[in-house]
Formats: sequence, C-alpha cells, structure tokens
Amino acid sequence: MTAEQITKMLQQVRKGKLRVEAAVERLRDLPYEDLGYAKIDHHRSLRQGFPEVIFGRGKSPEHVEGVVRRMLPRKHNILITRGDEALFRRIRKLAPKAEFHPLSGTIAVRVDRTVRGKGNILVVSAGTTDIPVAEEALITAETMGNRVQSLYDAGVAGIHRLLGESHLLRDARVIICAAGMEGALPSVVAGLVGVPVIAVPTSVGYGASFHGLAALLGMLNSCASNVAVVNIDNGFGAGYLASIINRL
Amino acid sequence: MTAEQITKMLQQVRKGKLRVEAAVERLRDLPYEDLGYAKIDHHRSLRQGFPEVIFGRGKSPEHVEGVVRRMLPRKHNILITRGDEALFRRIRKLAPKAEFHPLSGTIAVRVDRTVRGKGNILVVSAGTTDIPVAEEALITAETMGNRVQSLYDAGVAGIHRLLGESHLLRDARVIICAAGMEGALPSVVAGLVGVPVIAVPTSVGYGASFHGLAALLGMLNSCASNVAVVNIDNGFGAGYLASIINRL
Amino acid sequence: MTAEQITKMLQQVRKGKLRVEAAVERLRDLPYEDLGYAKIDHHRSLRQGFPEVIFGRGKSPEHVEGVVRRMLPRKHNILITRGDEALFRRIRKLAPKAEFHPLSGTIAVRVDRTVRGKGNILVVSAGTTDIPVAEEALITAETMGNRVQSLYDAGVAGIHRLLGESHLLRDARVIICAAGMEGALPSVVAGLVGVPVIAVPTSVGYGASFHGLAALLGMLNSCASNVAVVNIDNGFGAGYLASIINRL
Amino acid sequence: MTAEQITKMLQQVRKGKLRVEAAVERLRDLPYEDLGYAKIDHHRSLRQGFPEVIFGRGKSPEHVEGVVRRMLPRKHNILITRGDEALFRRIRKLAPKAEFHPLSGTIAVRVDRTVRGKGNILVVSAGTTDIPVAEEALITAETMGNRVQSLYDAGVAGIHRLLGESHLLRDARVIICAAGMEGALPSVVAGLVGVPVIAVPTSVGYGASFHGLAALLGMLNSCASNVAVVNIDNGFGAGYLASIINRL
Amino acid sequence: MTAEQITKMLQQVRKGKLRVEAAVERLRDLPYEDLGYAKIDHHRSLRQGFPEVIFGRGKSPEHVEGVVRRMLPRKHNILITRGDEALFRRIRKLAPKAEFHPLSGTIAVRVDRTVRGKGNILVVSAGTTDIPVAEEALITAETMGNRVQSLYDAGVAGIHRLLGESHLLRDARVIICAAGMEGALPSVVAGLVGVPVIAVPTSVGYGASFHGLAALLGMLNSCASNVAVVNIDNGFGAGYLASIINRL
Amino acid sequence: MTAEQITKMLQQVRKGKLRVEAAVERLRDLPYEDLGYAKIDHHRSLRQGFPEVIFGRGKSPEHVEGVVRRMLPRKHNILITRGDEALFRRIRKLAPKAEFHPLSGTIAVRVDRTVRGKGNILVVSAGTTDIPVAEEALITAETMGNRVQSLYDAGVAGIHRLLGESHLLRDARVIICAAGMEGALPSVVAGLVGVPVIAVPTSVGYGASFHGLAALLGMLNSCASNVAVVNIDNGFGAGYLASIINRL
Amino acid sequence: MTAEQITKMLQQVRKGKLRVEAAVERLRDLPYEDLGYAKIDHHRSLRQGFPEVIFGRGKSPEHVEGVVRRMLPRKHNILITRGDEALFRRIRKLAPKAEFHPLSGTIAVRVDRTVRGKGNILVVSAGTTDIPVAEEALITAETMGNRVQSLYDAGVAGIHRLLGESHLLRDARVIICAAGMEGALPSVVAGLVGVPVIAVPTSVGYGASFHGLAALLGMLNSCASNVAVVNIDNGFGAGYLASIINRL
Amino acid sequence: MTAEQITKMLQQVRKGKLRVEAAVERLRDLPYEDLGYAKIDHHRSLRQGFPEVIFGRGKSPEHVEGVVRRMLPRKHNILITRGDEALFRRIRKLAPKAEFHPLSGTIAVRVDRTVRGKGNILVVSAGTTDIPVAEEALITAETMGNRVQSLYDAGVAGIHRLLGESHLLRDARVIICAAGMEGALPSVVAGLVGVPVIAVPTSVGYGASFHGLAALLGMLNSCASNVAVVNIDNGFGAGYLASIINRL
Repeated sequence: MTAEQITKMLQQVRKGKLRVEAAVERLRDLPYEDLGYAKIDHHRSLRQGFPEVIFGRGKSPEHVEGVVRRMLPRKHNILITRGDEALFRRIRKLAPKAEFHPLSGTIAVRVDRTVRGKGNILVVSAGTTDIPVAEEALITAETMGNRVQSLYDAGVAGIHRLLGESHLLRDARVIICAAGMEGALPSVVAGLVGVPVIAVPTSVGYGASFHGLAALLGMLNSCASNVAVVNIDNGFGAGYLASIINRL
Repeated sequence: MTAEQITKMLQQVRKGKLRVEAAVERLRDLPYEDLGYAKIDHHRSLRQGFPEVIFGRGKSPEHVEGVVRRMLPRKHNILITRGDEALFRRIRKLAPKAEFHPLSGTIAVRVDRTVRGKGNILVVSAGTTDIPVAEEALITAETMGNRVQSLYDAGVAGIHRLLGESHLLRDARVIICAAGMEGALPSVVAGLVGVPVIAVPTSVGYGASFHGLAALLGMLNSCASNVAVVNIDNGFGAGYLASIINRL
Repeated sequence: MTAEQITKMLQQVRKGKLRVEAAVERLRDLPYEDLGYAKIDHHRSLRQGFPEVIFGRGKSPEHVEGVVRRMLPRKHNILITRGDEALFRRIRKLAPKAEFHPLSGTIAVRVDRTVRGKGNILVVSAGTTDIPVAEEALITAETMGNRVQSLYDAGVAGIHRLLGESHLLRDARVIICAAGMEGALPSVVAGLVGVPVIAVPTSVGYGASFHGLAALLGMLNSCASNVAVVNIDNGFGAGYLASIINRL
Repeated sequence: MTAEQITKMLQQVRKGKLRVEAAVERLRDLPYEDLGYAKIDHHRSLRQGFPEVIFGRGKSPEHVEGVVRRMLPRKHNILITRGDEALFRRIRKLAPKAEFHPLSGTIAVRVDRTVRGKGNILVVSAGTTDIPVAEEALITAETMGNRVQSLYDAGVAGIHRLLGESHLLRDARVIICAAGMEGALPSVVAGLVGVPVIAVPTSVGYGASFHGLAALLGMLNSCASNVAVVNIDNGFGAGYLASIINRL
Repeated sequence: MTAEQITKMLQQVRKGKLRVEAAVERLRDLPYEDLGYAKIDHHRSLRQGFPEVIFGRGKSPEHVEGVVRRMLPRKHNILITRGDEALFRRIRKLAPKAEFHPLSGTIAVRVDRTVRGKGNILVVSAGTTDIPVAEEALITAETMGNRVQSLYDAGVAGIHRLLGESHLLRDARVIICAAGMEGALPSVVAGLVGVPVIAVPTSVGYGASFHGLAALLGMLNSCASNVAVVNIDNGFGAGYLASIINRL
Repeated sequence: MTAEQITKMLQQVRKGKLRVEAAVERLRDLPYEDLGYAKIDHHRSLRQGFPEVIFGRGKSPEHVEGVVRRMLPRKHNILITRGDEALFRRIRKLAPKAEFHPLSGTIAVRVDRTVRGKGNILVVSAGTTDIPVAEEALITAETMGNRVQSLYDAGVAGIHRLLGESHLLRDARVIICAAGMEGALPSVVAGLVGVPVIAVPTSVGYGASFHGLAALLGMLNSCASNVAVVNIDNGFGAGYLASIINRL
Repeated sequence: MTAEQITKMLQQVRKGKLRVEAAVERLRDLPYEDLGYAKIDHHRSLRQGFPEVIFGRGKSPEHVEGVVRRMLPRKHNILITRGDEALFRRIRKLAPKAEFHPLSGTIAVRVDRTVRGKGNILVVSAGTTDIPVAEEALITAETMGNRVQSLYDAGVAGIHRLLGESHLLRDARVIICAAGMEGALPSVVAGLVGVPVIAVPTSVGYGASFHGLAALLGMLNSCASNVAVVNIDNGFGAGYLASIINRL
Repeated sequence: MTAEQITKMLQQVRKGKLRVEAAVERLRDLPYEDLGYAKIDHHRSLRQGFPEVIFGRGKSPEHVEGVVRRMLPRKHNILITRGDEALFRRIRKLAPKAEFHPLSGTIAVRVDRTVRGKGNILVVSAGTTDIPVAEEALITAETMGNRVQSLYDAGVAGIHRLLGESHLLRDARVIICAAGMEGALPSVVAGLVGVPVIAVPTSVGYGASFHGLAALLGMLNSCASNVAVVNIDNGFGAGYLASIINRL
C-alpha cells in the first residue's frame, strides 16, 4: 500500500464513503503491504527481464512442469537449475524455446533476449571439471540479459593461458571465477583487473580438497581486495549477483 | 608499454635511430610491461581517488610513518587500518588532516574529498560489538570517495528496527552487512533490496561462534542470491569492493 | 515401588504375613524399583496420551510390525518415524487408523485424539525443502495431543511473509522453527515473540552448509535468548520437547 | 499502535479533528508500530518482572554505570552478566541492593522479588569447574522471578550423587544442566524426569574437549528426547529460556 | 634367533663344524631375527589361543577362503571380521565349526575353546543400533578364550536398566562399552566400577553425531579416569585389548 | 546397605523392635546405599594405596592447602597435578614428605610406598618436549604403588634408540606412550610387545598438529590392536588406568 | 619467441623487409610467447621421456580414447590414471603395448623405456589396502623413466619387516611412502635414510581416520625433516615429483 | 657392526681367541649396531657439512648455550631456530662467527662455508609477513652449504612481479615457496618451472585463514604436480629438505 493509496483511503473515511471498521480491516495487513516495496521491487525486476528461477534438484518432474506451466503466460525468461535430459524433454513440449545445457543441467527458456546489463560479464574457470559450475553461472547471467564471455581451462599452474587472453579480462565489467582444488584463480585474476570478481569455489578435487572447503578457504583469504565469495558450487548465485552488479 | 610506444620504438629501429640490441633490451621486459595495464590501471585508480592503503597490524610505528612520509607528496588519500592512538599521534604530526576512528583503529588522511561513487553505500551492522568492523568498512568506503550511510544495531532478533529504517535500504546502491554470532543479517537485508549485498562475518560471539565461523557459514549459505561474502572481520575488503562496485 | 507399597509390605512383615526372605527378595530390585518413579512417570505419560514411538530407520518391516502388534492392545497412539510407503501398507493392515505422511515418512496411529497441550504449537519452516523435518515435528506434536499450526516457506529472505502471518506467531504457546542453509529463521521468529522457540537445523543445503552444520551453528549463536536447539533433522525431538512444554 | 488506537485515529479523521496529512504521517511508521506487539510484549514483560539485562563483557565500567543509571528509575530488576568486583563496587554505590556473584561475575539488582514462575527451576551441574556457568543460569532465573534450586557436583561418573538427590529432580518444573568435558549429564537427568531439560555445554576441560565442542556435540546427540541445547557457556540464555517456560 | 641358538652356532664355529662364511650369512638377517622376540611372542600368543584374524572388508571371498585354507592346519581359532552371509557359506564348507554372527558380520571358527582369560569380560552397549559393534567385540573376546557377558540396550537415558544389572558390572574384570550418539555410557559405567573400561564410540546417530565424532570426543573427555578409547566402530580392537588385559 | 543389613532390619521390624515408619525412612535412601558398593569399592581402593588426587589447575593455593590438610590424617598418598613451585612450598610445610616434579608440576606426598602393582609399568615418550606429560603419568603410577621405568626421547624417526632398549619393553606389564606431533610411537611400541599400551597424545607441536589433534587421530587409528587412547595431555589418566590394569 | 627470434625480426624491420604494423602484431602476443620458456620447458620434458598424462576419473571412454589417438603419433609414453578394465580394452586396440594395473586402475603405454632417472625410486606402503595408491606412484615413476623398487606391507606395527629389508632403503635415491590409518610410516622410514621421502596419505581406514585426514596430519607433523607431503591418495603426484627429483 | 667386523669376530671365536660367551654378549646389541648405518649415515652427513640443529623454542638460554658449547669443538656449522636477540648475545660470546637473523629468530654459526649443493635454491615468498618463515628456510639452506637466492613479496595478486623475475625461477634447481592466506603461490610458481617446489604454508592471515589451514589445504590441492608440502610455518623443514634434494 503506497502513501497515495493510504491518503486516498483516509479521504474516503473523512468523506464517510468508507466505514471506520473497513478501514481498520484494510490497515490490518499494512505491515505486509508497506513492506510491499520489496515485492514491488521484485515485480519490477521481473518486468525488467529477471528470469523466474526454479531450483530443479529434489523436485519431481511433474512439480517443475506445473510451475513452468503457470509461469509461461507471464512471458518472462525461465531458468531451471540442476535439471536433466528427461526433465528437458518434458519442458520442451511446453516451451519449444527451451534450451538444455547438459554439463550443468541448466534449462533456460529465453523469450526475452533484451540486453540489460551495461557491460560484459566474463566467466573464468580453472579446469575442465569446473565447467559445470561455470556454465551454470554463464547461463544464469545470459538469461538475466547480459552479454557473457567465457575463458575456460585457465588454471593458475598454466598462467600464460590466462595472460594470453588478457583482453577478455580487460573487456569485462564483472568477472566470475569458478575454481576447485586450491581455488587460487580469483586472486590471480583479481590482481590483473580493477573490477569486482565473484569467486565460486567448486567441489572439484579429492582428498584434502574436502569437497570444496580448500577452495572456499583459499578464496576467502584472497590477497586481492576486489574478491567476494559465494557458496561452493553456487554457479547460479554468482551469475545472479554478477547480473545485479552489471545492471547498476 | 603500450601499442603506440612499441610502434614508435619500431619506427626508430627502422629509421636507424635505435640500435637493434637496445630495442631487444627494451623488449626483454615486455611481459612485465605488457601486463602494465594492470599497473596503469592501478595508477589510474590512484589518480581517481583510490587511497593508498597500509595494513597497520604487525608493522612498527616507524615503518608506517616512513611509508606515510613517502606517500604524502602524491596527494592521495591515505588509509591505515588496524592502527592505534599512539600511531595516530605520530601520523597527525606528518599529516594534520589525519583522523582517527578508535573503534576500528582506522586512520584516514583525506586530502581529496571528491565523491566518485555513483550512489550511496550503506553499512548495516547487527550488534554494538560488530561496529568496529562496520566502521572499518565505512571509513574505507568514505576515503575511497563514496557517500556512506550507516545503520547500526539492527540485529535480526529486533527486525522492526531494520524495517523502521527501510528508507536507508532503499536509498543504497551497494550494501555492506557486518554481523557476528549467527550472521543472519545479510539474508534479511538482501531479501528486502535489489542491490548487491557484501556480507562481512565478524568474530563477535563466544562458544559455538568459533571466532566467526558460524557467521561465515551462515552468510555463505544465505537463501538470498544477491549476497557475496568476504573474510571474517575484513571490513576493509568489504569497503573496498563496495567502492569498486559503486564506481561502475 | 512406592512409599505406600513399601509401608504395606513392612506391615505384612511385622504381622508375620510375609516372610523376611520374601521381603528381602522383593527389596533386592529396589534400586531399580525405587527409580521407578521414572518408569511410573513414563507409564503415566503413556496413560496421558504420550504415543509409543518407533524409530523406523534401520529396522526391518517385520521388526516394526512386531512391535506395533504388541503395542496395539494398549490403546495408545503409536508414532513411527522415518518409515516409508511399503511399511505403511503393512501397518495399515494391522491398524486401519494409521495415517502416512510421505514427506517425512512418519506413520501415526491416533486412537486417542484428546487434546492435552494447553496452547497451540506452531511449526514454522524456512524453505520447501525443510518441510519433511517440519512435518515430522508437526505430526509428533499432534500425535502427542496438541493443537498444531504450521507456517511453511517463511524464509528470512522474504521477511514480509513471516510478518504477514504474525497472528500465528502471537497465537502460539510454543514455536518450533525448522531451517537449513543459514538457519536464521529462529532468531527472527524469537525476536517477535515471548514464548520458547525450539530450533531444528535441517541438513538442507549444499557446499558450505556441511550437511546442516551451518544452520546448527547459526541457531546456537542466536542473538535471541528464547531459543534452544536440537540435533540436525531432529523433527521428532523438537515435536516431543514442544509437547512436554505445552503440557506444563 | 493497537487496533483501538487506529480506530480512534480514523474516527478523528472522519470527524475532521485530524487532518489527512497528519494521519498519513502517523501511519507512515505503522510497520514499525504494528510490529509493536513485540515491543509491547517486551514492555509487558518488563512490567511483569523481567529484568533489564546488560552483557558486561567488553563494556567499559562507565558505560555500564550509565546504562544502570538510566534503568534504575524504572524499578525493574537489573542483571549484569560477566562483570567483576570493581564494576560491582561502582554499581553498589548507585544501587545499594546490588549483589555480586563472583564465580560467574553476575551482578543482580533485585528490587522486585515477586515470584512469577509457576514451579521450581533446578540447576544441575557436573563438576565444580562448571559452577560459574551454572551460577549465571541460577541468578538469571532468580532475578526473573523464579524459585530456583541447585544440585552441583553431580557428574555422571558418580551417579549415586544424582540419584541420592532425586527428590530435587522430581520437584522441578524445568531443569537446567551445565556440564563440560563429555557433557553426559543432561542425558542422564532427562532420562529420570518428564520435564524440559535445557542443556548448557561449558568450555570446561582440555585437549579433545576443544573448548566445549565435545560437550556441545554430546548434548545435541542426547538419547533423551526432552533435551534442548544452548550455546557453550551460555548460562544466561539457559536461565532466560527456563524462566520463559516456567511462566507458561 | 635366541641367545641359545646363537651360542650353539658359535660353538659349532669354534669346533670347526660351521664355516665362518655360513655363520656370517646366518647372522646377516640377525636384526630381523633378533627382533624375533616380537614374532616369537606372536607365535607364543598363537599357541596360547590367540586367533588368527582376517579383516574381511574389501577382500574378495576367494582371497579370504585362501587365507583360511592355509590357516586351518594350524589348529588355531580363526576370526573373520566384517564378512557376510555369502562368505560364511563358503567358509563353512572348509570349516564346519564356523559360526556366523550376522549383526556384526563376524565369522568365528573356534577349534580351541580353552578359557585363558582370568576373569569375565563384560560388553555393555547403549542402544540396539550399537549391538553390531558390541557383538564384534564380544565374539573377538570369546574367540580369544574369555568368558564374556553382555548387557545390551543400557543407555544412560534409562539409568535404572544399568543399575538394575549392577551385579554384571561387579563381576567383570574388564569392561567394554560401545555407544554412539552422545557416548556417555563409559563415564557412567566407569564411575560404578574399579576395573578398566574400554570405550568404543560407534557411528550410530545422525546430524551432529558426525559419524561417531560426538561419541568419540565424549569418551576422550570422560570424567572417569579408568576409561581408554579405541577408534570409532572398532569392536575388534576393544575385544582384542580387553583379552590382552584379561590375560595379565 | 547389604543384603544382611536389610535382613537384620526386617527381622527387627518383625520383632517390633523397629517401627515401620523408621524402616521406611531407612529404605528411602536405598538406591543411594545400594549403589554403595561403588563407594565401598572406592573406600577399599583408598585403603589399598590409591592416592587422593587433587587437580591443581584453576584452584587457589588456599583451596588446595585446605584439602590437603583434611586428607593428611587419613595416611593415604596424596597426588596434586598441575601445580607449581609456589604451591609446593606451601604443601611442604604441611607435609614434609612432599616431592615436587617441576616439568609436569606434579606434587606427590608418598606416605605409603608399598608396591601393589604386579609388574612394571614403562613410560615411553617421543621427544624431550613430551616429558612433562610422561612425567605426570610416571609420578601418578608411582604414587599408586607401582614399579615404574621410563624410556624418554625415543621418537620413531630414530627407531634404533627404541630397539636398543627393547629389554625395557619386554620387562613391562603395561606400557604408557606419550607422543605429540605425528603420534606414531604407540603403534611402533605396541607392535613390539604383547601387553596393553596406553597412548597419550600430547599438545606438543605447531601448525598442523592443531594442539594435539594430529597425534590423537594418529593414535586412534593405530594399526596395532593393543592400543587404547586417553585425552590429549592426560598423563594422569594414563598413569591411573595403567595402575588399575597392573593391579589386576 | 626467443631473443634470437626477436633480434631477427627487428633486423628485418630495420632493413624494411617487415612492416612496422606486422611487427607490432607479432609482438602483440609477446607476453604469452615470452612465458614460452615454460611451454618450451614442457616440450623439452616431453622430448625427454615425460609421459603424456590423462586423468581418467570422470572422463568418458570416448573422450579418453580420442585424446590417446591424438597422442599416439608423438611417440611419447602415455599414462592414464583412475581407469578401468573396460577403458583398458578400448585403449589396447589403439595401442597394443598398453598395460593395465587393476589395483590402481592405471593404464600405461610405454613406447620409450629409456631410463632417465639417476637412481632408484623406492615405493614403500604400510598395509595391503594402501597398495592401489602405491601402485599408482610406482607405475607413474616407471612410465617417467625410472628404475623403481617396491616394499609393500611394511607397516610400523611390524617394524622388523621394514628393518629386514633395509638394503632397499639404502639403495634408493628418492623414497615414496604411502600409508593410511595413523600415517606413521614416513617418519620411521625417513629416520633411517638420508634421502628425500615423499609421503602420500591414503584414505584407507575408518572412523577417526576421517578419509585420510589422520594420516595427512600425521605426515605433516613428521618429526623427521626429510619428509614432504602430497594430497591424500595422490599416488600420481608422488610418482611425478619423485621422478622430477630423480632427474636432477 | 659391519660384515667384516662380524667375520673377524667369528674367526677369533674359531681360533679360540674369543670366548663364546663374550661373542654372544657382543652380538646381543646387534640389532642396534646393525641399524648403525643410519647413524653412520648421520655421521657422514655431519662430515659433509650438515649443520647441527637446535630448536630454540621452549629451551632455556642456559640449555642452548650448553649444547652449543659441546658442539663447537666438532667444527660443524650450528643452526639455532626460533631464538631471540638475548640468546644471540650469549651465543656470540661462545662463537664470534654467530649471525642473527631477527625476523625469523634464526642464529647461524657458519664455520664451514663450502658449497655442497649442486645448484641454486630459490626461496619465494608471497607477502612481507611471510618473510620470517622464508628467512628460516633460506638461512637453513645456506647453513647446509647451498647457494640461495630469494624473491620476496611476489604474491599472486601481483603476478607481474613474479613474471618479471622469471630468470630467478629458471636458475633454480629446487624452489621453496612460503605463503599464507590463500597459499596460491606454489601452484603458480610450479606451473612455470620443471623443478621440485617445496611449499610452506604460513600462519599469516586472520579469520578464515584459521592459522594457516587455508594455505595448507590450498597447497595440498595444488593443480601442479611438482609440489610437496611441509607443516605450517616449517621454514626449517623446507630448507632442510631442499638441501637434501640439492645434494643429490
């Protein structure tokens, strides 16, 4: 409920067009409505090309299908993370524009391809096994209306590969770095640029990687100051946050 | 070494004005120079109001004093983190504009007060004991040329305090959230806004807070997607990254 | 053996109606019997509508079936946790009143529907994936004779949802909060009410949630003082303890 | 702002006694006020004998003194945790009724000695080194208007001590158990009673106690279902929650 | 090589019956032989009824069968841990005396039933789910020639069960305690007796039991001084060590 | 209360020499008395030369002095662990036989030097920095009436030192092994002998020793089966348990 | 691009044979080329008999097959780690010299059997379950052109086995030690020799081995100074590093 | 005892010049003597310029002084780690050649400056705060007879610094990398060279560095295969192992 709406309602009360009891009733849910700017903001976001997002993991195909069916009429992009081939085949029947990205299991229905991000988002990943997480970030950013570039297999033990593609680093407004094992990539990348770097530790590795803990700790302790970290394997979160920043 | 500089040098070689040996010698350090865009970028940053930063912890007062002495002629802002009253008194003699922020131990010499950040940075903190970390973030952002607002003592167990100041949340382009104990504040804040939230876990707490680990894990697992995390107690990093984003 | 029983027995000894040897024999197990107030308490509890509980996990269907068979004649409610559809079908043959709650795998046989709890127990959960744990708590509390309400999907990143249902919070005498990921919900809820809040961390999440550790630590460090915590995923324990409190 | 207050205000608007703009202004803060039931609840609590609480740790004596000075006129009990002898001497000058409990560093000013808790709260502790935490719980509960009993030095390796005082267990409506090292006491106690047991792990121990972690994990895994756990060394929290329950 | 054997050999050298070169050759392996007291001790142990032990886990049935075949002629008891029904059927064909204990997967071939332990070994376990580990300890101790008694399902939350069987505790010369979850049983048991208690944490539990870590830490921090701990789920180790002690 | 005592009392009841009420009163504490065998056992232990033990850490000198004063008339050995030079000087005034062992801070008053242990206890330690813990074990065992030998500075990286003293290993009935860092010593020692080995991890080391955790985990995973483990730095516990075993 | 190549190019520029623009273009990638010594070094390594390595885990058989097909013409040795029987059968069709080592899943194609390592590499392992990791190290070292010896099943609880084969220790220039459980072997071995020892913790064990963490910590805390550690189960890394050292 | 010595002794036995009993006696300690090659090897090492090493931490100045006094006549280099200025002043009186390195607290007495290492050892460190550990490694390697170079302050966030000094990397036969925080340096360095890299995590950092754990895990998970790791802050170990390798 906006200030105007409240003013209008009070004027109706004054004019006797609205009973006091009815006004009290309406105001009863005000805390919810007044917080509505959050919801309004959310709605505005949706209008501006933010996708509707479904976390596929642990949901039945029927469930996801049902949600997609309700979403389709709104003409927003739809993003399903952690899906699979079988789910994709169901979704494609509902939404022929659906695309499947098998490494990450991401399904994207892009009905709105307007670019709203102001610059490029670059997704860098360390090893080939980090690509699923990087891809989730990339597809998320793309579906949220960004120009996205990628630089895969640029691990720190082969630093020349990263340096040889330094134009990509220079062209980016926001950079996402996905790396497992020692998780050193974001520090090196962030030292080469002056833009925000979102670090995504991946659970790639074995033994003392402790399912991504080594990479996570490494990234949190980055000696570069333009690095912030999201959860292990959270490609979606990195892509989402990078999009938010790229809209600023 | 820029492309123009290389072109110029090669023309001198062609014209016989530069010996081949001398040219080889100059190119010898090319990898270093070519990466120079990082340094140039750094220099440009400095010109644009990025402060020179000295991490005070573990450095002798003489050492810090010496560094400050060398920095002063460059007319940049200077930021010293983790200092103390005694250090401040020494610095003030060199730089009368120096200001001391005793909760965080931050010393700032602001010779350049130009605002370069495009919007407001808001620093929210959960409890009074989180204020030192929040203050370090705030002073860092200010010294880097941002308009900064603060909302302290807004812990999640008193949610009305946060909601009652929602206009501050709405006015911010980037938000920094410092919280110890359960570290829940960034999730609540990020759910109310559509801008990037940088979460700083603090080591405030006891027992099962494990020196900030509880807050750190909480923030990494935030159910809001517009949150990224920096190291425990890293107010400087949060302020720095927020400034980088606010410049975009 | 109660004080009266002992008195009675001693009088029989005095009157010569009971041989000393027989009395010694009866007293032989006294430590066990004397502690009997615990058992008696337990029996009384059962009479008062506490269910008989079977932890289904790791037990064979035959085993559970056998236990239920022995329990049925006592006419108490029976609660089986961590069961499945197949087990339910077996149990329903023995106890046609059995109900199955598939999300949590809880099977309840409610022969006694008397309400003994003095107020409402409210079960709040953060995300849809926390519902299995919440449901286990809810069914446990119901089967123990409480009026139970639920407020699901009220995560802290959408705080208006929680505030919009604040009448539910106000109506509860005891609140159970199940949340995974950052586990922030109990702090927010407890800050809004003056009643005990039992926090159940769930293993929902991935990466740095470390199977519920993040939520557990968050809840233990709650900045609200009316929160206590049970084991990760222990919906039964939360429901049981809430029932005990609601009986007071 | 209560429903009556809103009704009254609306009636004034209708009668023309209050301008629409003024009414809008008043409603502007409604979300804050509407959440007021929390605050009102808080106020009511205070009226009912809940103490005003100051966490002494990390606060300067002047600061604590100042807060106490502002509190005294309200005639509520005042509780200061983690204080010391020197602080006590300052407080006693302001409040001659102040009492100091040196083991826990708790300072209590009890101006209101009305008993509001409905039954006894029993504080059990395992070893003599756990007494500081137990005492903090005990004084908190007392200051909040409860009859409190204590049973100290009743560790599980001398089970007869606990059993020999079983009447204390039977007489309690809520039990607090403080234990360090293996933290087994709450399980044993909870198995002997039918009332809620609040377990407080203490940081007592060395080596593999890992500053209370062993006790914390032990208590979270209690095989008794009427146990919930608060943070390590959090005697205040246990006493507070027990008081809340004892008021029900 | 014993001192006698060396003496004998040297006498043969002196008498010229053994060439110096041959003697040097024999002495070449002396470090190995001289350490032989370990091996001899081992052999003596075997003669005295120590079983030959095969850890079944991760070994193919053919492999185990082959080892058993080579062992059988030596007429010692044979103990196979972590086996299964299928393996048992193969072993029974070779050794008709083989017995299978399905809860723990232990297979014992007891050809020698002489009792060599000087007193009783008592195996106590906390819950029914701890029985597999307890059984492994029990069968190990039995196969090593001890009189063994068991007291199962004597968890600390039902302390009367333990106290009611206190004669078993009094009759034991060594006690093994297997417990998961909070692992409190060994402290309680050890407080009731004056004999060595070997504590075996089990991985029974979920959530914050962290696969036996909670029980392990609890046992290491036992407030009783007559407790020592073996690895999580190491029933064999506990049975073995108890047997060694019971032989003393 | 023994069976005879009960019989006697019941006969007095029968004969009318004891009122029923008085008999009920006496039986009231029966659980406590019946558990008395534990206490009796404790008393018997004391009579047999078990020392009275005071954990000095965290106790004021006055407190320890007071306890010693009450103990002295009983003519038992007295053992004070974790004391210091100043405490020793006080104790020596009360008990001229007191001896101080400065490395471990152990103070022993040995009024009874009867040897009750049946064999030798050998205390082996890895490095010179482990000696304080080893000494605490050694003095404990000695004060409890054992013949004790020591083999210090026998770390596994110099295995010949251990082998060169193998007669000490052979002569021991129980062995205590104290080691920090990698904690490998108990495995090597236990592989050389057929007697129980009690392993004490020490907090000696730095970095990844994590205050004794590395040694603790190493010892729990010993590939030798005759090893059990006590808490980090718990020399007293090891000495106590070894004495219990050596009495068997 | 080498210094000669640059000189040559510059001379062509001077002579007017190369346009300035073309020269700038060539120099554009100089940072990449200048770092080329790394790549050249890599190429040289390959020429000198370093194998081409494929980590098999997580790669499809088709993928591995494709890589092998491209590698075969280069006539280098090929090493595939973490493969299986099925993969081996495919590879053997392409490369008849392929050999399969089923314990570790290593597939080696050795076309070049030149010995380039200067001394022996010895692979020692503690238990039979450590052999897969040891074998991976052994085959890696062999395929990289080293003489390799092995000493398996030499755990520290049977130290005589290790001592009895001390000639193997003496003959080695580099030693690899693979051990799980307590991970004590490298300390013992390193104490017996004066050459570098590369320790590989294995994930062998259960309970408190925490998937190799116990062994890892043990090895990092080795009291011998000639030990360095690689990741848990990283047999390949140990073999690779040992080969690098043995080439020096 | 060598083969020749045994042969000689046996010949004396044969000739009757040595009694059998005396020969048995001599052979009694054979295991110790036979292992003597380890000691001999140790002695040889000392002769070849290995220093005598004293770990200063936790030793009294008198103790260290005493050891040095006994060492001086042997004319070996002496290395004291973790000492301080006061200790140095004492040592300098005994050994005027003593040098003090205050950052690491290392005291070296270099009487023998022969270079025995075959190539250069390079010590690289990430930040200025890592220098104490790097210096300990450097002085250790120097005192053990190596040519050592250093490259300090070459953290991965400023990769051009490392690349600009690539000639140092190329000139090294063994490289030591000391780094705290994210510990990424060894991966980058090892990717640029073909020689062994010994990684030393340092405890530099705060918050989620967990006293060097982050750096340790990062290094263990290095994606470069020519990296092995020593304990946190173990500069001595790295310098020692590098020297061993450089001697090969």
